[in-house]
Amino acid sequence: MTASADHPASTSNWISVQQARRAESAGSEHEIRGWVRTRRDSKGGFSFIEVNDGSCMGNLQVVAPAELANYSDEVQRLTAGCCIVVRGQLQESPAKGQATELHASEVRVLGWADPETYPLQKKRHSFEKLREWAHLRTRTNTLGAVMRVRNRISQSIHQFYDENGFFYVNTPVITASDCEGAGEMFRVTTLDLERLAAAGGPVNYDHDFFDKPTFLTVSGQLEAETFACSLGRVYTFGPTFRAENSNTSRHLAEFWMVEPEAAFFDLADNMDLAERFLKRLFADCLEHCQEDMEFFDLRIEKGKIDQMKSVIEKPFQHMSYTEAIKVLEQCGESFDYPISWGTDLQAEHERYLTEKHVGGPLILTDYPSTIKPFYMRLSDDEKTVAAMDVLVPGVGEIIGGSQREERLDVLQKRMAAQDLNEEEYWWYLDLRRFGTVPHAGFGLGLERAVQYVTGMTNIRDVIPFPRTPGNAEF
Amino acid sequence: MTASADHPASTSNWISVQQARRAESAGSEHEIRGWVRTRRDSKGGFSFIEVNDGSCMGNLQVVAPAELANYSDEVQRLTAGCCIVVRGQLQESPAKGQATELHASEVRVLGWADPETYPLQKKRHSFEKLREWAHLRTRTNTLGAVMRVRNRISQSIHQFYDENGFFYVNTPVITASDCEGAGEMFRVTTLDLERLAAAGGPVNYDHDFFDKPTFLTVSGQLEAETFACSLGRVYTFGPTFRAENSNTSRHLAEFWMVEPEAAFFDLADNMDLAERFLKRLFADCLEHCQEDMEFFDLRIEKGKIDQMKSVIEKPFQHMSYTEAIKVLEQCGESFDYPISWGTDLQAEHERYLTEKHVGGPLILTDYPSTIKPFYMRLSDDEKTVAAMDVLVPGVGEIIGGSQREERLDVLQKRMAAQDLNEEEYWWYLDLRRFGTVPHAGFGLGLERAVQYVTGMTNIRDVIPFPRTPGNAEF
Repeated sequence: MTASADHPASTSNWISVQQARRAESAGSEHEIRGWVRTRRDSKGGFSFIEVNDGSCMGNLQVVAPAELANYSDEVQRLTAGCCIVVRGQLQESPAKGQATELHASEVRVLGWADPETYPLQKKRHSFEKLREWAHLRTRTNTLGAVMRVRNRISQSIHQFYDENGFFYVNTPVITASDCEGAGEMFRVTTLDLERLAAAGGPVNYDHDFFDKPTFLTVSGQLEAETFACSLGRVYTFGPTFRAENSNTSRHLAEFWMVEPEAAFFDLADNMDLAERFLKRLFADCLEHCQEDMEFFDLRIEKGKIDQMKSVIEKPFQHMSYTEAIKVLEQCGESFDYPISWGTDLQAEHERYLTEKHVGGPLILTDYPSTIKPFYMRLSDDEKTVAAMDVLVPGVGEIIGGSQREERLDVLQKRMAAQDLNEEEYWWYLDLRRFGTVPHAGFGLGLERAVQYVTGMTNIRDVIPFPRTPGNAEF
Repeated sequence: MTASADHPASTSNWISVQQARRAESAGSEHEIRGWVRTRRDSKGGFSFIEVNDGSCMGNLQVVAPAELANYSDEVQRLTAGCCIVVRGQLQESPAKGQATELHASEVRVLGWADPETYPLQKKRHSFEKLREWAHLRTRTNTLGAVMRVRNRISQSIHQFYDENGFFYVNTPVITASDCEGAGEMFRVTTLDLERLAAAGGPVNYDHDFFDKPTFLTVSGQLEAETFACSLGRVYTFGPTFRAENSNTSRHLAEFWMVEPEAAFFDLADNMDLAERFLKRLFADCLEHCQEDMEFFDLRIEKGKIDQMKSVIEKPFQHMSYTEAIKVLEQCGESFDYPISWGTDLQAEHERYLTEKHVGGPLILTDYPSTIKPFYMRLSDDEKTVAAMDVLVPGVGEIIGGSQREERLDVLQKRMAAQDLNEEEYWWYLDLRRFGTVPHAGFGLGLERAVQYVTGMTNIRDVIPFPRTPGNAEF
């Protein structure tokens, strides 16, 4: 992350732990503010206190001498989780693995944490257990690092698109339309359910907030297309919803998605954008979250850093769906789901292709039109559409996208074939009626990207407060 | 906005209209892609075509000679809204108000726009009418400029917090708790309403997705506080919801809010952060959206640019609620709502203070505890809380915030006084049980900020697709 600015209004010389740990900070008087990770009393008449303030993975070591007025009353009672403010001199540290340490002239305790009841004691807890304490779990090394990496990826998303001339567009969360005719949706209503149940049917939407049934969006793509057809290059980045009853390590009911959409882009441009985009995210994590990435490399998935470096260096592999089917048919693996031309790929097939066949990111293109949504552009063969999915080892599909159908008549035929009502999409069709333009875009699930970069295996551990079937706690 | 990067995969020499209009682009062969704004045929045997691609407010003038193979068949049929690709040489323009013009060697038409049916003809439409065409309205000068400014403000929000050591946190949209015990909420459900009405009550939430009643969030603050108590400085920036049946020019059912939250910040730090933050947003708009801002200054609100400059230069005024009441009681204005110590300020009072009394931004502080939520920190007088509202001329309240109550016992008393159930807030109280820390934060409504910067009077015109009572179109 970017260095913290000085504390705005204060004259206290407060700096972050991240700043205090830099070698060049040694030699000056400073104040640091944070939470105790550990305390160890030395026989030499002082205590070592490890302090973390969330600004980085590492702690600052505080050396607190017995001469402090509150040494026996307070300093020696400090335990994990206590909130303290320490003033003193930053000095070069003789200890290994740290450039500086703070020699305290004052230790002030702002908040205690009773070791009898504070859940985060030294003992390691499972990620599953930590989910029950989602309000506290970012105080642990792993979850703190995950959230810093998640922040870095989000910042890089905005920076990448801003630098490439894409405008950020906030497409609506509440929608009366269903983006793909697919995906279970949550309903949004102000009707009083108890009263509704008591009064009996039919439901009168005149009393609902929007005078008709409304839902939580499954994608901002269609609305983003309207902006691409005026502002040229745009992207959405916001929460997206699926009411699917899947209790897996790969699904959330609420997740964040970034969806770029660009006028005058064809499938080749789209693939190129996706590759440059992902590489930028990965490179920024390696550069700006070095300490966090070293932690993941050591504790979560060995070799993660080398894997990222290799992905950044090498061009992504491309393969058509048709080629992929041939590879899968001939590979000799036994899959749970049979595969043949015209069937959708399952996670096991995608993972075989990216993990075993290619051993790196793979862009699959040109899927059968029958298994893809109506808005994808029909190719000249009239069997496939200009679709692309980006697959990565360990996660599977991380990006899905396509060139969009810009020809009004073709789009209308595709909608008819999928039993979609043209009247509901009048505004989407207008884009093809008035100054239609070839355009393309894709969607990247933020949580999948964070999982890939960190190696975290459960998607519930890479979002602040996961929403899954039966779980909307916090 | 930042300059567009070169088109990624193309060898077409495609550049944006924004780039093409720069004086230094003259002299080279280029391709531009965009939509026709106007066409005018000259008697000298050529046509002038104004082309816009959304990258900036201004158009590029294309000079299309009669020698083009498709001149009479196509070029002379071009009307507003048609999508074209033009190749040619960029030359210095002899005309006033433009540095360059493109002398076309090829004009390709990608999409026609039938002037008989295309709604956006030269005639000016009311903003109200344009809302019915929200999918097309960003093709107009005003709405295009609004969305570019909105993008710039969003980018600056992320840049400001990133540079100041704040981590971006995505707090949940679907929530089982109610942030303030205030504000009407939308319900989120997967229950089939027709079936529910037919089956009768009581409602069985075991069949609902989350096994209990859930709602759309009205604020991410409480969740953000959990992250401030571990990562130190964080901010949320996402959609927020109010199911209030207010059909005004100031309210939306769905809007975007940014909420910073910082550990170890007191009210003074919080005010300083808010002031630096707003000034940064305004300065970035003046610097990066110069052409758009000139348009607003000329067409929407005269003097807007000078107003912004003056706001950036001068320190914000501060005033306590108690002082403000005195000013209002003694000012001699007649208000619709009577005012006395202990009553909440209405929009008319806020606007009097910021517009007439101060004539600029004003931070009001130290409101009575009885009119503010339970989480605001009780002051030593035990009558007021460490709250702050930032008021600006033309808009009224643009920011609301406070120092938070970090003392467990005081917080519990305040919750009891407001009839809040401690059990529902167990995790919020835990933050005060384990390593409690003084902290503060505030919320800025993005749309209010865009309104202030652009001078747009109706909030429905500064968000892509507004959601208001009875309206969830697009």
